[in-house]
Amino acid sequence: MIYSLLNEPTLLLDKQKCLSNISIMAEKARKNKVIFRPHFKTHQSHEVGRWFRKFGVEKITVSSMKMAEYFASDGWKDITVAFPVNIHEKNRINRLAEKITLNLLVVSPETVDLLGKEIHHPVNLFIEMDTGYHRTGIAPEDFTLLDAILNRINAYPHLSFKGFLTHDGHSYKIRNDKNAIRNICQHTLTIAKTLKQKYSTQYTGLIFSLGDTPTCSVAESFAGVDEIRPGNFVFYDFVQVAIGSCSLEQIAVAMACPVVAAYPERNEVVVHGGAVHFSKDNLVLPDGATSFGKVVRLTNSGWSTEDTGMYIKSLSQEHGIIHAYKNQAENIKVGDWLGVLPIHSCLTADVMKALRPLEEEAISMMR
Amino acid sequence: MIYSLLNEPTLLLDKQKCLSNISIMAEKARKNKVIFRPHFKTHQSHEVGRWFRKFGVEKITVSSMKMAEYFASDGWKDITVAFPVNIHEKNRINRLAEKITLNLLVVSPETVDLLGKEIHHPVNLFIEMDTGYHRTGIAPEDFTLLDAILNRINAYPHLSFKGFLTHDGHSYKIRNDKNAIRNICQHTLTIAKTLKQKYSTQYTGLIFSLGDTPTCSVAESFAGVDEIRPGNFVFYDFVQVAIGSCSLEQIAVAMACPVVAAYPERNEVVVHGGAVHFSKDNLVLPDGATSFGKVVRLTNSGWSTEDTGMYIKSLSQEHGIIHAYKNQAENIKVGDWLGVLPIHSCLTADVMKALRPLEEEAISMMR
Repeated sequence: MIYSLLNEPTLLLDKQKCLSNISIMAEKARKNKVIFRPHFKTHQSHEVGRWFRKFGVEKITVSSMKMAEYFASDGWKDITVAFPVNIHEKNRINRLAEKITLNLLVVSPETVDLLGKEIHHPVNLFIEMDTGYHRTGIAPEDFTLLDAILNRINAYPHLSFKGFLTHDGHSYKIRNDKNAIRNICQHTLTIAKTLKQKYSTQYTGLIFSLGDTPTCSVAESFAGVDEIRPGNFVFYDFVQVAIGSCSLEQIAVAMACPVVAAYPERNEVVVHGGAVHFSKDNLVLPDGATSFGKVVRLTNSGWSTEDTGMYIKSLSQEHGIIHAYKNQAENIKVGDWLGVLPIHSCLTADVMKALRPLEEEAISMMR
Repeated sequence: MIYSLLNEPTLLLDKQKCLSNISIMAEKARKNKVIFRPHFKTHQSHEVGRWFRKFGVEKITVSSMKMAEYFASDGWKDITVAFPVNIHEKNRINRLAEKITLNLLVVSPETVDLLGKEIHHPVNLFIEMDTGYHRTGIAPEDFTLLDAILNRINAYPHLSFKGFLTHDGHSYKIRNDKNAIRNICQHTLTIAKTLKQKYSTQYTGLIFSLGDTPTCSVAESFAGVDEIRPGNFVFYDFVQVAIGSCSLEQIAVAMACPVVAAYPERNEVVVHGGAVHFSKDNLVLPDGATSFGKVVRLTNSGWSTEDTGMYIKSLSQEHGIIHAYKNQAENIKVGDWLGVLPIHSCLTADVMKALRPLEEEAISMMR
């Protein structure tokens, strides 16, 4: 890439790395005979979404009705909204359910009743199970609540029970421990087995759907699971490296930021690249410092993953303050470009609203 | 407002509170005989920008060239970009400097030289002074560097020295202490006086421009200062209340979030309203808990500022997890709407990209 084409903070996308990430996950799903229903909340882009089609993907996951509408408008016909139904979106649900196979997520009998009364087109419902993250979902041992929800689903002809869905978000708290990730997956597989044994006779064809990038990246097998829904893996990020989900080389996005000031006397460099470009997720480094992004050197063909020791130590709305050793800061000049591997690529892509492949025109995203 | 009109997380704007905030600040500027050049990075909206015209505002501040272009396209003719010049934007600078009075910020002689060689239309330059925040700017006692910058400005006919500019961002670390805010302001006024005494003879008409909402909200006088550039005050937020800049009643924005799940057994309620709606700034509460937003009750005319004790304890991409006491969570039902006063309204407005006045159509923002 010729960096002279850039003039402001730009989210670079290494398409080859991205395609490789998709390919590896698609192959893992194929080997394990599970449906690969990738979560599109990370890239939020028609263009990147189309790349998945080459790998046989026809079913996708999104995190809002707005995102479902966005991808349905690009021809996706089977979409799961992996977020508990917000009944105020009943009109949007009705409009979309009329056109495509729409799978929604429920966590309470009340929501099912509201859906049953307001929705007039066939909709598939997943029940979200809380397999350890404790954000939303039903405790796996709470069969009373499960049966109450199933009972309400059965009361409405347009509602069909599709199966159980979980997101093991607690895997994000793991640091560099593949066994801990595998243990989380194993725990969920056990729950999947129990639930399927209990409900498969009555609900033939029910499936168990598992999400989260760490588990899907690290676990080798998903026995008892029918579908995986990883999302972040399409780009990965510095948190995923810290968790142990991927290597630094697999991160497919880097922000290019122009240097606007250098302060060698306080070991700092300031770039244009702030909270409105990165969002504000951070990662505590092994030495206790807080990083808002890992600084890398940009190269003619992308970026180097060689360790620079530099990181973003704080972000204000437009400023990124980079920690750099004195000899580094002295050699960085105003007007230089630095690369920054994002802490959380989903949020960085969400605020940037555009991706810039290294060799092509910019890719637009959902607005 | 009839909340039945809403269907997804929506950033409500109480226009009367907003106009009152603008009015108070405009009146303070008038009394102190300083130029009121509000920072428009908080609202990023043509519509809200026009409200300032009724208070006599003709000069504005923005934080990027992109934002300068956005407001210039709505007729603003005198714009300060209060961010150190990124020389890669030279073409944008040239295009805008041809049309309007453009004031830029410099922090190094190198940038001035690059500007001098690349810019072909008159541009005014502020030198940013570091009066205590230690983010960007020149140390007030570094006259060698100051003179070097001035020397380079004087070398180019299109560049004019406009004066000194500072942003006392360290005021944001203060908690509930108006005197501490006044002390920061007093320290800056002393620096302003010294600089003006030293340079006013050679540079007649130079001005000293002071920013930051806490200082501009709390200080009563700005002797020696010629211009104030507060931005956040237009909406205020929960951090500003914690600092001591404003009252809870002055906050002019609240996110309306639909409840999608309630967990009385763990004192939690889950809303649709996550990092993509709020961004991720947080505030440590007096009891040590971390808040990502203060929960309030929505009313027919807006929201109540009565303390509910509820706050957002964590955010994922689309989920907001609210801490609520058991008896509260038991009384909150799926489908209810809750209001949330943002921690940092600038970032919340930036990710939302739209404002919804209580009684009117939605207001669009810069994209």
